[in-house]
Parts: sequence; structure tokens; C-alpha cells
Amino acid sequence: MKQTVLSLLVDNNPGVLARVASLFSRRNYNIETISAGRTNDERFTRITVSVSGDDQVVEQIRAQIEKLEEVRKISVLEDKTSVCRELLLLKVFANKTEKQDIIAIADIFRAKIVDVSRESVMIELTGNQNKLNAFLELMADFEQLELVRTGLTGLERGMGTLL
Amino acid sequence: MKQTVLSLLVDNNPGVLARVASLFSRRNYNIETISAGRTNDERFTRITVSVSGDDQVVEQIRAQIEKLEEVRKISVLEDKTSVCRELLLLKVFANKTEKQDIIAIADIFRAKIVDVSRESVMIELTGNQNKLNAFLELMADFEQLELVRTGLTGLERGMGTLL
Repeated sequence: MKQTVLSLLVDNNPGVLARVASLFSRRNYNIETISAGRTNDERFTRITVSVSGDDQVVEQIRAQIEKLEEVRKISVLEDKTSVCRELLLLKVFANKTEKQDIIAIADIFRAKIVDVSRESVMIELTGNQNKLNAFLELMADFEQLELVRTGLTGLERGMGTLL
Repeated sequence: MKQTVLSLLVDNNPGVLARVASLFSRRNYNIETISAGRTNDERFTRITVSVSGDDQVVEQIRAQIEKLEEVRKISVLEDKTSVCRELLLLKVFANKTEKQDIIAIADIFRAKIVDVSRESVMIELTGNQNKLNAFLELMADFEQLELVRTGLTGLERGMGTLL
């Protein structure tokens, strides 16, 4: 299944997010990841949505989103012409020996240890999806307590802007 | 205005996100940031929402979210007992001299340069909101082309888990 990353610039109003999300759910189409945060302009919020599936359906949804009054711009972030990143926090169970193994893996990925308790370690990692998945594969040897991911965010390379 | 960060563990189904978002917009309550991504269990998605405003209203919305069938668990991430992080990508206009100044600032914040074109630089930075805001304040001297942020994500410190 092909993954598509949509980048939206929307008015910073209540309701936009619910309307965008419902355009996907109405078609029983599951959003894989979504992230929404402030931009350099208070009037706007930027939403990044990643979905996997049929190109035609994604294109139909994209066209519907574009028609929403509060959506200023929507574009597809293509792999080759954009930078996409995600952040994860992973908490694993770890005794003394395991902690050393985990720190070694974290070093390889340039991940940060952001919390340590007597029997747990929390790691922060940022990167593209391939990097995050490779890290999680190695960490599967440890007992995972919790994992949270921001979902993808991205910008087009070069001078181009969404507006 | 006090900021509240809510962490939700929800079923990985279409529609949950729209339902959660609409509980905020129905009360005309603007979500500041939202991020949703996979967890270590395919059945679940984890959503992190940050809102600013009246404690009582946030508590009412929290109680309503908790009643949604697909919501397995919801908790408030308190500043002192949790780690919250956000990722941003910032693209600024930059000539040769400005590029050197930008790289110097990026070094201080341990930010990464992820794209360079003849007249632009894209920077990736991860941290808590204070760090991100301090960075953006310094970068305000440069002509900003685009800014995208993932919104907050977080986990409770120590051994605790949401489920």
C-alpha cells in the first residue's frame, strides 16, 4: 500500500480538524498519522496527514478537503522533493545490564535518553520513518512499556512554500 | 491561560479522531496542537492533545472523551511527572552570510540542518516547548518561509503506563 503525505494550511479555528478528519472517516478511511501545530502566522495551523491506500480514493479525499472553506492550501509531500520527520518516545523496562545495551543502541541512532528510573528507560528519537522503524526493530528485544509517536510532519525542499 | 496536555489511548479505527476533535469544537474550544501516531500495539493509536484555557471546561471535555467507546484511557500529562516533546521544521530565506549565522544558532540548540538550497535553509529541532520558543525567537531575525510543528507528544516518567 502506497503512503501519501498531505500537508494542509488551515485557518486556526475550532472545527477545522474535526471536519478534515471526518472526510476520511466517512469513507471508512483510516488516517495513519496526523499532526497539527502552530505556524509562523497566528492565523494559520498546519496539519500533516499520512494515509495508506488507493491513490484514487486519496485523490478524491484531497479534492474534498480542498473545498473546505477553512483550508487555504493542500499539497502532497512527495518523497524526493520534501523532508518528512517524526518524533517518538519509547519507554522500555530495563535492568542494569539492559540499560547499557539500550544506551549503546541509542548512541548508534543518536537518540536521547530523556528519563531513567530504577527499572525503566525512556528514549527520544527523531528521523524519517525508515530510521524510526529500524530503531524499533532493534528495540523489540526489550520489554516495551509505552510508545508514542507524533506522526509525520514535513516541508517541501528548496525555496517553495505552501502559500 | 494554563496549558493542559491530554494523552489518549484509542482504538485504531476511522472516526475516533473526528469524534474526539468534535468534542472540542462543539464547545468552540480550539485545540492548540494534536498529534496521533502508531503505538507498540497495532490495535491502538495514541493521541496527544494540548489545549489552553479554563480548567473546568477542559475537565468537562476530558470526561466526555472518556465516555467515547473507542477511548481506552485518557490521562493528563503533568509537567513535573512527564516528558513532553515537539518537533519543528523551519525554512528560512538565507544568503551566504545569513547561512553562517543560522548554522551558529542551530549548533547552540543542537538543531539539524536538513536541507539547503541556494537561498534557503531548512532546520529540524526537537525539544520541549520552551526550547522551541527560544529558538524561534532568535530565528525571528531571519525571513521565515515556512514553519511546521508536530504538536506535543509525551509520556509519563518512570514505570507508569497509560493502560
